[in-house]
Formats: sequence, structure tokens, C-alpha cells
Amino acid sequence: MFIKNAWYMAAWRHEIGAQPFARTLCNTPLVFFAHPDSGQVSALLDRCCHRAAPLRFGQVVPQGLECGYHGMVFDAQGACVRIPGQERIPASAKVRAYPVAVKDEIVWVWMGEPELADPALIVDYPYHNDHARWPHKHQVYRVQANYMLLVDNLMDLTHLAFVHRSTIGGNPKAHVEAKMKVTPREDGLHFIRWLMDTTPPPTYRKAVDIGERIDRWMEFQYIAPGTVLQWTGGIESGRNAMQNRDQPGFSLRIFHGLTPETDTSCFYFWSAANGYRQDDPQATVDLFQEIDTAFKEDKAIVEAQQHSLCTQGEQGLVDIVSDAARIHMRRTVKRLAEAEHTQSRQ
Amino acid sequence: MFIKNAWYMAAWRHEIGAQPFARTLCNTPLVFFAHPDSGQVSALLDRCCHRAAPLRFGQVVPQGLECGYHGMVFDAQGACVRIPGQERIPASAKVRAYPVAVKDEIVWVWMGEPELADPALIVDYPYHNDHARWPHKHQVYRVQANYMLLVDNLMDLTHLAFVHRSTIGGNPKAHVEAKMKVTPREDGLHFIRWLMDTTPPPTYRKAVDIGERIDRWMEFQYIAPGTVLQWTGGIESGRNAMQNRDQPGFSLRIFHGLTPETDTSCFYFWSAANGYRQDDPQATVDLFQEIDTAFKEDKAIVEAQQHSLCTQGEQGLVDIVSDAARIHMRRTVKRLAEAEHTQSRQ
Amino acid sequence: MFIKNAWYMAAWRHEIGAQPFARTLCNTPLVFFAHPDSGQVSALLDRCCHRAAPLRFGQVVPQGLECGYHGMVFDAQGACVRIPGQERIPASAKVRAYPVAVKDEIVWVWMGEPELADPALIVDYPYHNDHARWPHKHQVYRVQANYMLLVDNLMDLTHLAFVHRSTIGGNPKAHVEAKMKVTPREDGLHFIRWLMDTTPPPTYRKAVDIGERIDRWMEFQYIAPGTVLQWTGGIESGRNAMQNRDQPGFSLRIFHGLTPETDTSCFYFWSAANGYRQDDPQATVDLFQEIDTAFKEDKAIVEAQQHSLCTQGEQGLVDIVSDAARIHMRRTVKRLAEAEHTQSRQ
Repeated sequence: MFIKNAWYMAAWRHEIGAQPFARTLCNTPLVFFAHPDSGQVSALLDRCCHRAAPLRFGQVVPQGLECGYHGMVFDAQGACVRIPGQERIPASAKVRAYPVAVKDEIVWVWMGEPELADPALIVDYPYHNDHARWPHKHQVYRVQANYMLLVDNLMDLTHLAFVHRSTIGGNPKAHVEAKMKVTPREDGLHFIRWLMDTTPPPTYRKAVDIGERIDRWMEFQYIAPGTVLQWTGGIESGRNAMQNRDQPGFSLRIFHGLTPETDTSCFYFWSAANGYRQDDPQATVDLFQEIDTAFKEDKAIVEAQQHSLCTQGEQGLVDIVSDAARIHMRRTVKRLAEAEHTQSRQ
Repeated sequence: MFIKNAWYMAAWRHEIGAQPFARTLCNTPLVFFAHPDSGQVSALLDRCCHRAAPLRFGQVVPQGLECGYHGMVFDAQGACVRIPGQERIPASAKVRAYPVAVKDEIVWVWMGEPELADPALIVDYPYHNDHARWPHKHQVYRVQANYMLLVDNLMDLTHLAFVHRSTIGGNPKAHVEAKMKVTPREDGLHFIRWLMDTTPPPTYRKAVDIGERIDRWMEFQYIAPGTVLQWTGGIESGRNAMQNRDQPGFSLRIFHGLTPETDTSCFYFWSAANGYRQDDPQATVDLFQEIDTAFKEDKAIVEAQQHSLCTQGEQGLVDIVSDAARIHMRRTVKRLAEAEHTQSRQ
Repeated sequence: MFIKNAWYMAAWRHEIGAQPFARTLCNTPLVFFAHPDSGQVSALLDRCCHRAAPLRFGQVVPQGLECGYHGMVFDAQGACVRIPGQERIPASAKVRAYPVAVKDEIVWVWMGEPELADPALIVDYPYHNDHARWPHKHQVYRVQANYMLLVDNLMDLTHLAFVHRSTIGGNPKAHVEAKMKVTPREDGLHFIRWLMDTTPPPTYRKAVDIGERIDRWMEFQYIAPGTVLQWTGGIESGRNAMQNRDQPGFSLRIFHGLTPETDTSCFYFWSAANGYRQDDPQATVDLFQEIDTAFKEDKAIVEAQQHSLCTQGEQGLVDIVSDAARIHMRRTVKRLAEAEHTQSRQ
């Protein structure tokens, strides 16, 4: 059972063009469309109330979305506003509409009770609006795994040394031994680790001229249910990096949006922004390619893990020390899901 | 639960050649074969009574159908008439046979009680035998939808304006506003609509020199469970078309045979005959191509509708005015199915 | 329910190289690996005890198999011997290990109680070690059928005349009429048939210069649950072939290893050895190709049979005379399965 009273990333804004756009989220088939004039994005259940034909076969018209089978038209609130060949429109002719908000290049959707859908609850990610300082590229994968397995993946970075051995992984020992500072939060958790006075990895050197010794950080913030914000980088040692990370050096930001499709599949949205050589479009492309290769490694292992859980169950699994942040994340999600469940029964 | 005591279209006659021909109908795997000398077509359950191997792997022999695994031979009634290496043939060695009739280029099969299989109940479609007056071509699709969704489709022609917008649909307003005369019948229903003194659509003009004003008709007859006969055309106004449609002009006949494969798949057999320019083979080909394109649009929307019904259920659907013929058709099928069910329990 | 306390063929030894090798047997996903120095083969459940990731994504290291997700290492007995970033290894950190034996180029695995795994119970097939006298090639198919359907296939050779009509089948009458001598054994059964003073089939003539009249034999030994040893050949008549088959002539040996993957799929391992023209590598290749073509015919019919059994059930099937050996084989397997079941409940 997914948390419903939450904003999930539904799409990149650029994915929604002149045609209806269908995507199943939390086991619910949705169709998104943008008003031809205002561009305002709406989301309806992708099922006409006449004969259950998917509305994605229809077309966007000024009054809303026209079904592609017999031409009924539904407005942004899901009310039927036209039935071909019929004057009176019964009140029962409607489809469910879902609250939508567009912010920071992201289309967010609220899957639960509409009256609780407060846009102020949506994560801030201003870097998507700052193309000069944070040039970036978007991606989305369909992953054959429960979205929590991808959140797990990001909460235990010791996997870098094994899954990404030949890509971004680098030195296994460093990844395994770095101590993390984990800070629980009401809506998730935050962790950061610092490697002080160390040699820059090859990727950093290739990207920028950074000196011989650097202070490195990896910072992750998890906001339930499916958002992870990452800031990673390094600054030449002796410049008080811990106090001020907004100095020249190497740094990148990754937005991770993890949204359930079904119980055993999800969408992995991500963007990667280079905080260096911002005037060089190739820097953005190179970073994107490198991360794309690595994240497809995550996709492969996590899909295999899901298959294993489906066929072999969860019994007998053993937690280890590196699971600390992952276990905290899981507890947060469980707490929020139980609170929602209790509330909905009152 | 399908109606069993009925003739279903199983195949075009030309589909059954020298080899066994397998097709699942009403959830039952059948194998059809034509006698090498007489050409008489028989149908057996596609499952040898020895080790359940499908008989379609076998070969047609003078005595019947020889299993391709261990060589048992079954005659047209399903009785085993040969067991290699064994003299005595036990009475239990048999497979179920299904009554078959070949008529009007169509192979019909009876899925229910054999003693009720009266060939006189089979629809007449003499146009298939009149190649000079009604030259035609055959088609068959496998459609991933219950066959009733395709019958629904033909009973509500308002879909022409939306599904076939860019093909045969033409003017939405005309299709939606034309009033239909629906006549219930014991075995189904009949409907016709006339558009008097109207301009001929481009397709008509391309096909024949028809004048500036025509009287148009669309006539459909539904015979339960899965046959729809269509006659469509137009004649120059002022020639008493309503009294006599067998005059020069534009007209076409379509045979629709809709047969269940499984609960969520079916076969859509159709033929299209051009009642104009009968001496020009290209006219037949052109008509076939145009209809093939349009019917594949129906296939796509109906398959999406089936998927939606499978995953989202049927609750909350709303009937509209244009559903009148469709609802009558559904009631007829329900009545026949219930009568059969009651009868079989007595 | 499969017999568990038995040695099943898991792989050809050459299939297991430097990387972990995964194969599901008896519904259990296994991962095999060979120690980098000793070459000793081990088998573990293909599921890390940390987060259920399949171990096949990992790599072989001197201490055992390292998981490709977070780097835990398991030894040949399945005990965890390393957790990155953690000193203490909990006793619960382990995966199930399965007894393995390598013999006669075959990797055997024991799926049941480890203490019962006696390598002395493994079939002897010394011909795999005698490349000079029995040059041979290996094959393995994944077949979408329960492994018993393939054993059935080998126990009733009347199928040769029908399934292999155009390949190795030859004369239907000869195959059907030859009488077999069937000898029950504690662990299976043995059968042989002789055709005395007959003409050699084309395959024999092509292979060797064998004379005009020969004595032919087909000998099969079934060892439960999944091994069939075949020796087939012919010697010029008048040389006392029945007393001594190790004379010049035509002869071939086939090893058949049939191992369940799931209830409706299995692996068909086989090797074919030419006991003639041993110095001509082309003779080995030609024999392999001929048999490969024929066995793929078996695969096709048996997969269709499985599909038929899945959808149509087993009711109403009729045994015939040629089923004698097959029925005995089935009784043996049932007896062994019941004995194992009774034992495991005590």
C-alpha cells in the first residue's frame, strides 16, 4: 500500500506536449494534458466514464480532453462538458481528477485526498530554474522494481564500490570506511560525509583544475516518499570548504525522483547539474553520460533484487552496519503510511 | 460464459488447406482439417487422447487426422481408428468432434450440444457466392479483447467521427446527428439510417460518378452471437432510392464475423465487397485497403478498452443516448445465454 | 513435487568459467562458481542474505563469491566471511549451500538433505572420459515442459516414426513392430531391442562401410530421476553381435540428462559420441548436427504437449501398448517420491 497523501513526481514538464500523456502511478492509470492556450497541466483517471476507453487515445480541445472513442469531453476537474448527440449531461458523467502542480521543471501529482493537496508541501529545488549556475539534463527510466528498492540503493552508498566498480565507484575502501553523519528529520533524513585532505578522483581532475589535495563531501537529503536531493563535490584543501561549499572547485547536484508505477515497478526520474565549466555544454553532456551509465547499473541490480524478492520472499534477510540510513528511511515511510491509514479510518 | 449452442465463424474456407489448422474458439483449442479427397472439413478438440499432444502437429491421412507424436489416427467423428503396434482399439480412445458447416466461403462451427446443431440456423450471405456482382476480399485479425467489445463498436456508429477521424470518419456532425431506426428481432436487431438529398463524401465520388446530390443509407443487421451484416451506399437523389437500392450508384457490403477466442481475445473476420466498378479489380483492392486501415483503428481502441476493463473494472460506467442499439444487443445476448443456461440445467 | 534426495545434472563442467554461473533447478535459483585456483565447483542459493540480490551479479574471489551489491563474501559452504565496513559477522549471515560433484565432464548437484549426498550414487558414464574411443560433443536446451515429459518421450520409441519422420525416424513399421525386452531395476529400468539380419539404414551406410546385412540394437537405461543412457548400433550379420557389441561397425552413445527447472520447464543436456571413424572430427560434428535437429523436434512436440496439459488438464487420457516402459518409469518415480516424502515426515 503506497502513501497516497503526498506529492509524487509524475513527469518532467517537457514530457507533456500537445497530445495527452499517459502514465500509471501508484497502480492508477493517469492521463495528463496541458491546456492549449494557458499550458496549465491537468491529470485525470485514464478511463472514460462511458465505456472505459483510455482517454489517452483522445485529443486536447479548448474545453478539456476529448475521448477518442465516442467524443465525450472532460474538463480539468474531470466533469463531462460534452456528449455528442445529447443535450443533457448527467451529473454521474465524470472522471476522477488529481491535483497537479508544476514547479522547478517538474510535474507533481497528489494521489490522495484532494483537499489535503497543499502545494506548499512540495520540495524546493531552485537549481532547476538556475540554468546559468546549474546547467543540467533530465532523464527518466522505467524500472521493474518497487520504488523503495531504489530509495534503499541511495541510502547505502557502500554499493558504489561494487555496483559501480568500473564506472563511478572508484576506491572501495574509501566508500566503505567513510563515516556518515545521519540526521533524522520529520519528513525523512539527511546525511553527509566529508573526506578531508584527500587526492581528487580522476573524474574531478578531468572536469576541473582542482589542485593536488581536496576536501570532498557527499550530501544526501531524503524527503518521503520518493525524493532524494544530492550534492557532491570537492574544493582545494585549506579553503574552509566545510564552512563554504560555494567556492570554485568540482561540484554536482542530482535530483532523484522515485515514483511507484505498480507494486513491482517504478519511474526513476533524475537530473544532473554540473556546478563547474557552466559555459561549456559538453561538460553537461559528459556528466549526464557518466551518470546515465552508472544509474543503469543500479537499475539492473535492483530489478534482479526485485525478481528475487518476488520469487524467494523476504525471509531470513540480515541487516548490516551500512544499513543505518536505509533502516531509518524505511521506518519513516512506515510511520507516515500508518499515520495515513489511521487517519483515513477515523 | 459464452453462448455455446450457436454457429460461430471459425475460419475462411481458404484458410484450411492440406495441413491441420488450429484455432482456439470459446476457450477451446480446435483443429480443423479437410479430407484430402472430398475436401469435407472437420473439427476436433486439438488434444490427442493418448498423451494430450496437440493434433495440429500431425498430418491429414485418408482415414482422418494422424497425431504427430505416436501416430494414433482419429476420424471426422473423433473416433480413434488406428493405434500403431496395437490391434484392439479401446472405445475410450476418442477425441471430441464439433459440428462443422461450410457455407458462403465461411467455415462455421457449433460449440455446444451436437444434436442441436442445425445448419438451417446459419446466416445466409449469398453475396460471397456472387463474385460478379459483389467482388470482395477477406481478412481476419486476432484482437486482444472480448468479442462483445467489437459488437459494441459496430452498434454505436458515433465512434466513426472520433476513431476514424482521419480515415473513413468524415463529418462528425453528420454521424452524430443522423437518426437511426432500430428494429429488435428475435435473434438480434436491425438498424438503418438515411441521409436524404446530401452531398456525396469524397470516397463515393472517387469510386463512381454519382452526381451532386445523393440519398445515403447505412444498414446493419446483428445476428447473435457474433455476426453483423452491413450494407452502405448512396444513389443520386430523385431515383426513389428508399424503394429500390439496387440501382447504379455507390454501395458496399461488409460481412463482420466476431468469434471469441478467450474471455479477453477474439477473431475479427470481415470481407468487403464493392457493389460498383465490379470489372475493375483495383476497386476491390482499394476498398479493402481503406477498410483495413479503419478497422485496425477499431482494433487499437477496443484492445485498450479491454485492458482498461481488466485492470480497472466496470464500475461507474454511464450509458449515453447513442448506446441504444448497443444496449439492445447486450440484452439479446444476455437473454440467449440465460435461456441456454436454464435449459442445460433441466 | 520433485524428488530432492537425488543427484541431478546441473551443467556441463565447461559451462562454469571465471564468472558466477546461475541456473534454476527444481524451482530453486542456484549460483555455481569454480574456485580460481583449485577449480573446485560450489553451488549456493542465488540470493544474498543481506538484501536478496542475486549473487550471480557478483564476482569470484579467493575466499568465495562476493555479492555484486554491497560486497558481502560467502565461502563454498555458504558462510559469510566478509562484510565491508564491519568487523563482527553474525552467525545468521549465511546462504544455503548445495552439495556438488564433478564427474565425467558433468556437474551434479544434490537438492535435498546434504547429509544424504553420497557421490557413490552418481551414474557412471566413463565414455565422457574416453575421447579417443568415444569422441563427442555436448548440448543443452531449455525446454518449456516438465522434465518427465522428456523422459516419457525416451521411453516410447514409437514416436520416432512420427516426430522424426523426416529426420532420424526412417521406417515407421520397423520402429512400431520391434519388440522390446524391458527389465525393471531398483533405480529405474533397462530396455533393449534387436533387429536381426536386416538392411542397414542410410545413416549407417553413410557413416561406415558396414556390409549388406546387419544385426541392429537399441539399448536404453533409465536411472531415476533424470538420466537416460543410450547405446545404439549395428554390426555385420554373422559376427555374434548379441554376444559382443564391441566390434567394428556402426555405434553411437547418447547421454541424456533431464533436470527440472520449474514445474513446467527443464534442461535437456545431452552428448553424442560416435563409436566409428574416431579419427575424423567431421564424423563427430555430423552426428551432433543430425541429433540436434531431431531432438529439437522432440522439444517442439513436448512443449506443445505441456501447454496442452496446462490449459486442458490430464483427464481422459488413454494408455496404449507402447506405453509399457513409460508406465514403469512413472511408477518408479512415484515410488521414490513417496518414499522420500514418508521419510521426511518421520
